[in-house]
Amino acid sequence: MNAARRRLVEIFQLLSRIEKEKITSLEIEKLTGFSRDSIRRDFSNLKITFGKSNGYDVALLKEKIAGALNLENNEKKCCVIGLGKIGEALLDSDFFEGTPFKVVAGFDSNVNRTEILRSAFPLHPLSRLKAVSEEKKIDFAILAVDDNEAQKTAEIIESCNIKGIVNFTRVALSTKCEVENVNPVFALNLLVAKKS
Amino acid sequence: MNAARRRLVEIFQLLSRIEKEKITSLEIEKLTGFSRDSIRRDFSNLKITFGKSNGYDVALLKEKIAGALNLENNEKKCCVIGLGKIGEALLDSDFFEGTPFKVVAGFDSNVNRTEILRSAFPLHPLSRLKAVSEEKKIDFAILAVDDNEAQKTAEIIESCNIKGIVNFTRVALSTKCEVENVNPVFALNLLVAKKS
Repeated sequence: MNAARRRLVEIFQLLSRIEKEKITSLEIEKLTGFSRDSIRRDFSNLKITFGKSNGYDVALLKEKIAGALNLENNEKKCCVIGLGKIGEALLDSDFFEGTPFKVVAGFDSNVNRTEILRSAFPLHPLSRLKAVSEEKKIDFAILAVDDNEAQKTAEIIESCNIKGIVNFTRVALSTKCEVENVNPVFALNLLVAKKS
Repeated sequence: MNAARRRLVEIFQLLSRIEKEKITSLEIEKLTGFSRDSIRRDFSNLKITFGKSNGYDVALLKEKIAGALNLENNEKKCCVIGLGKIGEALLDSDFFEGTPFKVVAGFDSNVNRTEILRSAFPLHPLSRLKAVSEEKKIDFAILAVDDNEAQKTAEIIESCNIKGIVNFTRVALSTKCEVENVNPVFALNLLVAKKS
């Protein structure tokens, strides 16, 4: 189901940007590269069978996928941990505009960084992660610390009731939290591997 | 094979950071969350059968995976397209240190950005992408432009003989190039979907 979920999330993101009312599986194939057959199978697994002949209703399709995958628009709170250049870029509220995700706190083990940087919300020393994440009910952490701090920070995150980690570091994290790797080196290695 | 490739790339990254000489499939399971069975099957598909009883030789394992997936250490040239905050952060050479990937050029449609920013290599207006990428033989593009410029920029990249795109934008790109999405919103949506 992991591959199907990945496809559906990508289709969901595509639908969020489409302005027409109907879309066919052939059009989705062209826009995403997934085969019509996989797309139809994914939809049929979600009991989406309407409109096959003249295309799917975009709004309804989006709603069904969102419902099945829990992608509704209720706000999900995030924090950025590690405020180097990448972390700093993610503090910019524009980055998550129009999404259900909202960054509500930033953390760094270096107090100089948390004092120098400006943001629309408080920045804290890493030692405050557990207290702040429980107080603010933070759902997800975006991890952008140095590689050599990644695993031990993941262990702190795990102890904080945070549901998942978006991992910008190069480290394959060992944690009970769900992890999605967004490191460019990992992505580049995957691109290289695909050509082989 | 996509899931297997993803696992192998992740195991490869893990092995790159491990200091011991032997590793068992159980240890890899603990460190990555992939099941021992998948790991053993992946290895056996690569004709890696050595050392099953007392663990795999880390160096040999890494070499075999690298060989099968073409992850050898020969330099691969990259460019960063879109020099906003994220793009600027990626110009920092530390980011790719110790990897075969080397950023050799940056591009932005706004000439003010390419003139203001400092980097160890030249920054160019986007209009120079085709000329520069052919001259420097650029293999991969890291795309960090605004969402509304993403698709048209991907089409320019496609015309440039660039092999793949690491996509920091939220747009599901339609292109013949291979694409790996590293957008935090996409990753967060996947984390939400996993919990459903």
